[in-house]
Amino acid sequence: MKKSIVVIGGSAAGPKAASKARRMDPNAEITIIQKAENLSMASCGYPYFIGGTFDEEIKLICTPTGVPRDPQFFFNVKDINAIVSTEVTSIDPQEKKITAKHTKTGEVMEKKYDQLVICTGSKPIVPGIPGIDLNGVTTLHTMEDAKFLKDIAKNRKSKHAVIIGGGLIGIEVAEALTLAGIKITVVERQDQILSFLDLEMAKLVEKHLKAKGGNIYTGASVEKITGKNGQVAGVELSDSTKIKCDLVVSSIGVRPNSDLAADAGLEIGETGGIAVNEYMQTSDESIYAAGDCVEVKSLVTGKKMLWPMGDAANLQGRVIGQNLALGNKVEYKGVVSTGICKVFDFVAGSTGISEGQAERDGIEVVSTIHAAPDRPGFMGALPIVMKMIAEKNTGKIIGVQAVGMGDVSKRIAEAAVALHAGMTVDDLLTLDLPYAPPFSAAIDNFITCAHVLDNKIKGYMKGINPKEVKAKFDSGEDFCFLDVRGPDELEEMRFGKGELNLPLGALRANTDKLPEDKNAEIIAFCKISLRGYEAQLYLESIGYTNVKVLEGGIVAWPYDREK
Amino acid sequence: MKKSIVVIGGSAAGPKAASKARRMDPNAEITIIQKAENLSMASCGYPYFIGGTFDEEIKLICTPTGVPRDPQFFFNVKDINAIVSTEVTSIDPQEKKITAKHTKTGEVMEKKYDQLVICTGSKPIVPGIPGIDLNGVTTLHTMEDAKFLKDIAKNRKSKHAVIIGGGLIGIEVAEALTLAGIKITVVERQDQILSFLDLEMAKLVEKHLKAKGGNIYTGASVEKITGKNGQVAGVELSDSTKIKCDLVVSSIGVRPNSDLAADAGLEIGETGGIAVNEYMQTSDESIYAAGDCVEVKSLVTGKKMLWPMGDAANLQGRVIGQNLALGNKVEYKGVVSTGICKVFDFVAGSTGISEGQAERDGIEVVSTIHAAPDRPGFMGALPIVMKMIAEKNTGKIIGVQAVGMGDVSKRIAEAAVALHAGMTVDDLLTLDLPYAPPFSAAIDNFITCAHVLDNKIKGYMKGINPKEVKAKFDSGEDFCFLDVRGPDELEEMRFGKGELNLPLGALRANTDKLPEDKNAEIIAFCKISLRGYEAQLYLESIGYTNVKVLEGGIVAWPYDREK
Repeated sequence: MKKSIVVIGGSAAGPKAASKARRMDPNAEITIIQKAENLSMASCGYPYFIGGTFDEEIKLICTPTGVPRDPQFFFNVKDINAIVSTEVTSIDPQEKKITAKHTKTGEVMEKKYDQLVICTGSKPIVPGIPGIDLNGVTTLHTMEDAKFLKDIAKNRKSKHAVIIGGGLIGIEVAEALTLAGIKITVVERQDQILSFLDLEMAKLVEKHLKAKGGNIYTGASVEKITGKNGQVAGVELSDSTKIKCDLVVSSIGVRPNSDLAADAGLEIGETGGIAVNEYMQTSDESIYAAGDCVEVKSLVTGKKMLWPMGDAANLQGRVIGQNLALGNKVEYKGVVSTGICKVFDFVAGSTGISEGQAERDGIEVVSTIHAAPDRPGFMGALPIVMKMIAEKNTGKIIGVQAVGMGDVSKRIAEAAVALHAGMTVDDLLTLDLPYAPPFSAAIDNFITCAHVLDNKIKGYMKGINPKEVKAKFDSGEDFCFLDVRGPDELEEMRFGKGELNLPLGALRANTDKLPEDKNAEIIAFCKISLRGYEAQLYLESIGYTNVKVLEGGIVAWPYDREK
Repeated sequence: MKKSIVVIGGSAAGPKAASKARRMDPNAEITIIQKAENLSMASCGYPYFIGGTFDEEIKLICTPTGVPRDPQFFFNVKDINAIVSTEVTSIDPQEKKITAKHTKTGEVMEKKYDQLVICTGSKPIVPGIPGIDLNGVTTLHTMEDAKFLKDIAKNRKSKHAVIIGGGLIGIEVAEALTLAGIKITVVERQDQILSFLDLEMAKLVEKHLKAKGGNIYTGASVEKITGKNGQVAGVELSDSTKIKCDLVVSSIGVRPNSDLAADAGLEIGETGGIAVNEYMQTSDESIYAAGDCVEVKSLVTGKKMLWPMGDAANLQGRVIGQNLALGNKVEYKGVVSTGICKVFDFVAGSTGISEGQAERDGIEVVSTIHAAPDRPGFMGALPIVMKMIAEKNTGKIIGVQAVGMGDVSKRIAEAAVALHAGMTVDDLLTLDLPYAPPFSAAIDNFITCAHVLDNKIKGYMKGINPKEVKAKFDSGEDFCFLDVRGPDELEEMRFGKGELNLPLGALRANTDKLPEDKNAEIIAFCKISLRGYEAQLYLESIGYTNVKVLEGGIVAWPYDREK
């Protein structure tokens, strides 16, 4: 008799596991059971469907050559039996069978398996606040949600939308709705959006989103959604702020769908995800699991974590497909937590852990912020602000963040590979990257950022984070804020906080204008703080003992400025 | 007395070494002596200046904030004495002094040094053929060359240019002149352009260049440049082909300027470059050298090589700047040979060594060619053809090439970092890269390429390189060429070489149309050969013993097709 492989879930991990299993084993009987109507939904594409990058929903389920991945496709092309609109209601690990029910007809079916793969995904966390059931309140999780929002966006059925939660999906939805001409307000409980970034990096994205017309409330939560005739009419925040709106999108995160696995007695991790070993095998050796419903290992911290991302799901599916056929031969090593998000003409990306996360995990780090153009000025340079975080005692890179209009995606990709390889700051100093003027400066941002961190680690550069400088301003601390840019640059951007302007080239001839007290605190900066650093070194050479450099210069300053 | 640091050469490595030395040592007396009139020329930008990306030559010597890096700048900002239009004519290592001569006045100067840095760069190799001295024959090496070509391009002073040499600079010039409305013909002695690529990859670039109106002669050399009244009128090739032209750009490569070092008794490597240790120190411990004039270590082969690239020069300069001040503390590890080139809306890049190079070096490899869109279809996917080469016995990645309209730069950057880290195919299989629909498919090209190579290494996929299939066609070999695409796809592209068309979805129902002989050679393909691979596996499951897959599918086919 043929081996029966049953895959629960037909979105990302499931079809990948099934397809790979078919390639590895032409004889097995393979069945996918999918609760939704569609298979292989590219759900990461929903915001771009809503925002109007494309209008045909069919594109979300097509192969690169334009063939829809429906049951007919799976049967003809892959000899896989895909059953849709059918929810698996229980797993019987003793009898090795599952029970499922058609979501429309209610018809019940049973299916025996030799090997089972659970890819049940995740469900959105819905805030338990008054008004959450009103019409016009939605999440963005299913194709139905996407079509609902697409209809609103395309036909301008909303004037003002409130988005609860400023994570990846919240920000992507904010962009999509803004592009459709809808005013948006993001309400985020934390003191910043995009929690994979450190605060001073996230604030740069917030600035950009505001410049595009969006409102953002951070450190605020929606306490209540108010309605009129069953329809959303507004929200009330924790500080009693009232915002009128006709649409609410809740995007405060997802939770793994691990109940089915738990009910079958499979081990569930502390994170709430299904526990799996390096072969993506659950506590039952005949059952594997992948995708949003499992927990994975962080290659940075070594801890188990949830990582509900489409790319990880696919890669895990491929691992399972092989292990089903070969026995446990192929490992899924884990994630370095790489994420990226387009925010209009800005991109925000990150890999590894943030400095804030490192602090919470008790990892001592050294970090720097660095701003630089992504290619030469004569090629139309676009700025990137980058933050690099290394473990203090080893120099190992544990996090890189980048935001800006430049090619952030490439730099985060470089960094992600470096994290996978466990590279140190030292390893990055003389990287041989693809250089030609259309693609990067002679020394790529990623390398110069490592140079700056190296300078800081070795004690040459005394960098100070913008967050710390802001705190000094806020507390009214007295220090000499030294701007070493040229006069024309001041017209373009300036703090207007009583800074002393002495262009670097004029510094040597104007030392009389500097504080008399050689122990006075001086914080030097320029546009990106390379000249700021040179000023620090010069000032030290003439006897100043307490000179710091504002990291990233004025370009990376995430707070308000005069200009 | 102050320590005297003298730097010979003011282009890339020299100013970087001097500036870094200044940052490390505020007290040293630092002098740059530069033969040309300008300092810190961004010579990699010449093709874009010529092609009209920008018109102001001053931009080639400006800082990111628009300040020209002239002697005044070096003096005021960095306290560095930069002397231009002055050629160092000899080094006296015993007396620790150099002699130099003003290039215009002939005035001679001497300068004592405690530490010397040689950054004398390279000179273009000029073919010793009749007519090379005619007016209208140039290289692209100096600002004068760039201005000469810019004038021709801007004022349409040429109708047809012949470019001798299809390397990086030759192809960049070809693009620049074409953009300026000048017809170009590239003549390359090798059987392909861009020798960092393998032939089947280079042919894809040649196709693109031809589609943009360029002519290319490979396997051909210019024997003679003919003239009329002292002005170029045409060229004659080795096979007697005569080409009329009014401009010839010779770009057959460069040679290190190591004569000055050799005359001073410094060790010169077998490559002709100045020999340096890992600290960029020459055989004289007071003398360092960097840039085009030195030889560096290949981190892939372990051999010494020339690597005249602007990014490497800068990174070497930074290493020297530190070692001058600290003693030998900082290492320049070497290069993985990463290069990239924009060719209109195509990009061609490579890191590591090619399969051809590996063969010549006696390294046994396994490789694959892979074609895939760089992001989902609904986001406007652009194709990339990638080749990945691994050492056979270790699985270590030793080369990655990519060409196409997609984001090649990111993939080559990822690969370059992986090569630096010594990663294996296995290490790439579950990489966590920055995924969101604007930036990549759910599984990035770089990872899917590793998957295909993994499938090949493990014996699942039996890939065959397009070069080998072409050889089969050329020798009239008999095999079944099986196209498993759909009928509509055939209308878009097809070989027209008698292939059998059976769409993958119809294969199981049409086995009677396949060769009767189960040992017959079948070469399956589709658009990118994923379905080709699935066809191979299915055919094997029904008893076929000799099924191969055309790697990269029809998209990566670099030769002529019917359509």
